[in-house]
Amino acid sequence: MVVWGGMEACAINGLYADRYELAMAQSYWSEGRAEESAVFDYFFRKNPFGGGFAVFAGLGSLVDALGSFRFSREDLEFLRADGFDPDFLEYLASFAFRGRVLAPREGEVVFPLEPVVRVEGGLLETQIVETLLLNVLNFQTLIATKAARCRRSAGKRGLSEFGLRRAQGLGGLWASRAACIGGFDTTSNLAAARIWDLPSAGTMAHSFIQSYDDELTAFRTFAAAHGDATVLLLDTYDTLRSGLPNAIRVARELRERGQSLKAVRLDSGDLAYLARKVRRGLDEAGMEDILIFASNQLDEYVIQSLNQQHAPIDAFGVGTSLATGGPDAALDGVYKLAAVGGRPRMKASETIAKTTLPGRKAVSRYYDDDGMMFADAVHLVEEDAPERMVHPFEAGSSLDLSGKRHRCVLSEVINAGKAATKPVPVREASRYAREAIETLPSEHRRFENPHIYKVGLSPRLRELRDDLIKRNRKELES
Amino acid sequence: MVVWGGMEACAINGLYADRYELAMAQSYWSEGRAEESAVFDYFFRKNPFGGGFAVFAGLGSLVDALGSFRFSREDLEFLRADGFDPDFLEYLASFAFRGRVLAPREGEVVFPLEPVVRVEGGLLETQIVETLLLNVLNFQTLIATKAARCRRSAGKRGLSEFGLRRAQGLGGLWASRAACIGGFDTTSNLAAARIWDLPSAGTMAHSFIQSYDDELTAFRTFAAAHGDATVLLLDTYDTLRSGLPNAIRVARELRERGQSLKAVRLDSGDLAYLARKVRRGLDEAGMEDILIFASNQLDEYVIQSLNQQHAPIDAFGVGTSLATGGPDAALDGVYKLAAVGGRPRMKASETIAKTTLPGRKAVSRYYDDDGMMFADAVHLVEEDAPERMVHPFEAGSSLDLSGKRHRCVLSEVINAGKAATKPVPVREASRYAREAIETLPSEHRRFENPHIYKVGLSPRLRELRDDLIKRNRKELES
Repeated sequence: MVVWGGMEACAINGLYADRYELAMAQSYWSEGRAEESAVFDYFFRKNPFGGGFAVFAGLGSLVDALGSFRFSREDLEFLRADGFDPDFLEYLASFAFRGRVLAPREGEVVFPLEPVVRVEGGLLETQIVETLLLNVLNFQTLIATKAARCRRSAGKRGLSEFGLRRAQGLGGLWASRAACIGGFDTTSNLAAARIWDLPSAGTMAHSFIQSYDDELTAFRTFAAAHGDATVLLLDTYDTLRSGLPNAIRVARELRERGQSLKAVRLDSGDLAYLARKVRRGLDEAGMEDILIFASNQLDEYVIQSLNQQHAPIDAFGVGTSLATGGPDAALDGVYKLAAVGGRPRMKASETIAKTTLPGRKAVSRYYDDDGMMFADAVHLVEEDAPERMVHPFEAGSSLDLSGKRHRCVLSEVINAGKAATKPVPVREASRYAREAIETLPSEHRRFENPHIYKVGLSPRLRELRDDLIKRNRKELES
Repeated sequence: MVVWGGMEACAINGLYADRYELAMAQSYWSEGRAEESAVFDYFFRKNPFGGGFAVFAGLGSLVDALGSFRFSREDLEFLRADGFDPDFLEYLASFAFRGRVLAPREGEVVFPLEPVVRVEGGLLETQIVETLLLNVLNFQTLIATKAARCRRSAGKRGLSEFGLRRAQGLGGLWASRAACIGGFDTTSNLAAARIWDLPSAGTMAHSFIQSYDDELTAFRTFAAAHGDATVLLLDTYDTLRSGLPNAIRVARELRERGQSLKAVRLDSGDLAYLARKVRRGLDEAGMEDILIFASNQLDEYVIQSLNQQHAPIDAFGVGTSLATGGPDAALDGVYKLAAVGGRPRMKASETIAKTTLPGRKAVSRYYDDDGMMFADAVHLVEEDAPERMVHPFEAGSSLDLSGKRHRCVLSEVINAGKAATKPVPVREASRYAREAIETLPSEHRRFENPHIYKVGLSPRLRELRDDLIKRNRKELES
């Protein structure tokens, strides 16, 4: 079934992978190592946007995608023509991911260096889902984090996502999903709204107004078709001299019919200045209930600035910078081997900060007496949550955790290839994100030089890692 | 059919739209204006990446998408629940785009302010495809342009795209397509390779090497499975002390079996320094034919710097910055109404530079005697290509075009809703892009302060625009 520009289901099944995943898989298969046990960690090294945290998103999409990660007959023919071993392709024909995945709840607050997702299973299956997993989680976590930052600036005001037109192609679908998880109220994206049951919203374009001989007629026509849901765009000709008086006139006409104009929208010029002028104009006309909606290249910083200026704006529309996660545009999440055949593995590096953490690991999150997040400790799964954690890189630095309430951050979401829990609706992930962010002390949430949230290691994990580093060095020198 | 994370065909048909497109459409329909003739222009205001040009891409995807832009029964039910008028939805049930689209060839060099795509048809149909058109063309043009910049730096060396893991979700599919149009030789993305018949390539991950007890065994195993196609990654433990000697050993073993190691890959550290050391090591072992492939956060500037340092690198792998079009991450393309009911329309603005160009317009491209691009003139379709063009904003500035060879940039790609030409394979668009870029004088191609390519207006078009501006002003003052 061709659904889009020649893009078939193949785009989002087993071929949704970098070629090297299958090249490695073929080697494992030919060596009889496909089923050898392996553990991979997904984690990132730097919070996006120079911030102090990230909002984990994409889990629902990942669980669905792993469930449908298969190779069709056409995929296999393609791979055969590309030089893969026919016997290996026969193996792939019945491939399905049958491993285990542990992850935080979607919407959880997560931090650099700690394992965010742990994937366990056969060496082959845990390797070939790498690209897919990174693609889903890196992007949605980036966008949910951006959305959470906009939410911080907007406070209780409305936030609408409308980035599809400048989103990165089909990436716009997940952008809308993740924006809602991170704290947006609505999206303009109808496809995303339908797929994930998100509230959708929208107003009108300048072209609508221009298509009429005059603005008043355009406003009247739109109001006739949309009644109480009408939002009028004021800046096609001149916001204060034309848009505002025409909107007031149409609002009066609606009122006479027992309806009311919902909002006006500002989309250019100095938004703080115009919002004040428009608010005054509406109030003087006895229309205190008509809302002001603002858009035009907004992001968390512009929204913050508008609020600091007490601009009387009730809702913000955020497009490009949200849907593309600008200026970062990517999260640097990686997927690293932590164990194989039950033996811990580690990626060495010249700098210890880029060294990975070996072994099957858990993350325990500790809370203060007032219920606020205090620190996260990474430890081996066979250990209890530690009472003391050490700094991941600096020798001699440790933190007492005794007596603090704590919980496991990762829990099983896929077991033997099957979803271990029922799907979590986006609205629920969104609610959870809001709650989780509220437990993060404000010094980690601010934009400028956020305080670094403490992520440490159990003494035993640190020892294991340092031993492996020493062993690597010795082997290089021998 | 659920193909991905709950994403059905609906994602990429009529619901691939901002909600306001359908809100406006409902108004047009209820006013009986759906079939009124309209003309829209797609254009952008600023070259991406601070460069001097853009490479037009996405046309093939757009043509396919417009052909399948329909509303399913489920879509209509969704819209009904969302408050749309049932009679309007009945109209949408049989909706198809039956308009006309004119565009440059895919891979064409295009510039700010000139119409890049012209869409003609009924007011309703030309409006509701806005989001889709912008989403496809903005993103693919951004990526093809980034790719062309990397190609400029790389010269004749190899270029591989492998951004899927940090691409913006499903946007990674089109990223690979557009990267090949802009000048990349291969992609790691198997889905994109299969859909658009792109050459794919890939090596191995660090995890592959770590999964063995030692690097030499990992290299040997990979070489056994991949023979002449083997590329070995050198930096898992230590590039010069471990990776290089092990690779040379495996290359010798391959040679004894009548095969040869294709390449080694550097993925960290100082690439210029390491490439020189590795080249010398390979050459001293009599392995001048083994190529060096480099990756790790490359972009057009790093590649340029490596070449300026004469680093002996044969091919580059570019990931995140290419697939996400960083640091821009979005092209600012817009879709503006130019005529309705045969009457020219224009979006007024406080600054003339943001005013749009009214009327049905063509673009003529003029060439110098040596076949190099000289200037583009925007004129009304009823005019011949002008012999003189004027500056779009500055009064008194004009350019003589008489006697210059010229051609139309836009040609019909969709007529009455049907593709007017047969599909252009990506490899052909890629060839065309290379040829087109070669006709662009180098001063427009450089990265720093590129010379601005001249885009002007016919005197008649400028007069039409200025008259409309005056008329707008008068109406505001009356």
